[in-house]
Amino acid sequence: VVGWGHRRWSLDKALDMGAIDEAADTLADAATGADLVVLATPVGLFDSMLRQIAPVLTPGAVVTDVGSTKRSVVKAAGKLLGRGVSFVGSHPMAGSEKRGVEYARADLFDGELCILTPCARPRASAEARRAADDVEAFWKAIGMRVTRLDPAAHDRLLADVSHLPHAVAAALVLMQRDEGLGLAGKGFLDATRIAGGDGGLWRDILLDNADNVRRSLRELRARLGELVGLLKTRDGAALAQWLDRGAQRRQSLLRQKLGQVHPD
Amino acid sequence: VVGWGHRRWSLDKALDMGAIDEAADTLADAATGADLVVLATPVGLFDSMLRQIAPVLTPGAVVTDVGSTKRSVVKAAGKLLGRGVSFVGSHPMAGSEKRGVEYARADLFDGELCILTPCARPRASAEARRAADDVEAFWKAIGMRVTRLDPAAHDRLLADVSHLPHAVAAALVLMQRDEGLGLAGKGFLDATRIAGGDGGLWRDILLDNADNVRRSLRELRARLGELVGLLKTRDGAALAQWLDRGAQRRQSLLRQKLGQVHPD
Repeated sequence: VVGWGHRRWSLDKALDMGAIDEAADTLADAATGADLVVLATPVGLFDSMLRQIAPVLTPGAVVTDVGSTKRSVVKAAGKLLGRGVSFVGSHPMAGSEKRGVEYARADLFDGELCILTPCARPRASAEARRAADDVEAFWKAIGMRVTRLDPAAHDRLLADVSHLPHAVAAALVLMQRDEGLGLAGKGFLDATRIAGGDGGLWRDILLDNADNVRRSLRELRARLGELVGLLKTRDGAALAQWLDRGAQRRQSLLRQKLGQVHPD
Repeated sequence: VVGWGHRRWSLDKALDMGAIDEAADTLADAATGADLVVLATPVGLFDSMLRQIAPVLTPGAVVTDVGSTKRSVVKAAGKLLGRGVSFVGSHPMAGSEKRGVEYARADLFDGELCILTPCARPRASAEARRAADDVEAFWKAIGMRVTRLDPAAHDRLLADVSHLPHAVAAALVLMQRDEGLGLAGKGFLDATRIAGGDGGLWRDILLDNADNVRRSLRELRARLGELVGLLKTRDGAALAQWLDRGAQRRQSLLRQKLGQVHPD
């Protein structure tokens, strides 16, 4: 396991922790002779990294990533990587708002979902199919559940369920008066936990998936428009129904999630 | 400690648990001869309850509540309660999305904030001031921190920091496609936890504070409008700054909250 990263401190720490066997001086050195390359940076850096590793990868090598958007990286890999090198997009949905190898945890991926976006052409080569199976086996070996989606569906659904909620959490924090923030309870802290994430990482995600995020935002606005309508007409029965539908939907999601973690 | 509630089952359970010493058959029976009355129902019922207890309360009695909005109950109490009876609004900010005496916990209030909205007239009677001090002592005795606000400021700030986040969490759940909900991670579950609350309870809060909730929603929209602008112009630096400002604001809130729980 060869690691490369921007900060020498992180590489030394990763060596100390046994997370990597060897630290490379350059990205190209790290990728030379690799069977599997895992890109784990903000999505805005993928294009440049693929350009740097493309010349040193040998036929049979497989490249994947851990980015939160998939259309752009799949497209860039298709354009930049050479013949005989396979790219399989991955989105392991695990992590925390903390950043750095020092926050690594062996159980971080246990039972969590990883979305693969392999080449979906009906006549994908045997090589591409094998690469997807290898990457799936990799994530399963560290405890993840794996599902497959095409890149466009991934980006559309994740805008709704992850990227927009992140942006809304940030907006909810930013709109508060200092005086009101002092009155925040546990509910507000939970609702805005995701807003504590790294700004640069999320900038890349939101820009890369901007079309879908804007569409998601329009759908949220439509739902909030329903609420305003109910408040205007003071339709208590319909308002309670609107809220209960949300509560029930979240309860059934919670039951489903608990079932996945303890599937007995 | 005399309890009254809609469901006989809850009263029996409360007796079993030692939460009350005696269960009354009617609200008026429960309030007769009381030193302190605590109204703990959805806010939409306060008006009717105040009407029922007003005739049986004796001079010196103090009435408070645990509602999440304060303008309406303060106004109703001023109109309905007799001379010599004091009303002091309370909003103990503790609880969970679970409902019922069976979820009672002795440590529920420890270190949490209770907002009092006593009569704020500069020439409030000695009686009114004593009542506010008594209610403050009551909440402190069960472990709460207490602050005082006027009812209008309370409702305005809570719309931003509690009522709107609740409505937004519900809207975020409601806008999801089933397919996307299956991809929800821990971040989405946290961000929408508050949407699991009781629909009837929250209907009352949102209707009672509808003017402020609509104003809060306009402020959220303004913030989300800023985001859309940054996505349109693809201004990465300003977008990262917008996100980082949210993250930093939440981090400082978190530090402040942790300091309150462990004030050493």
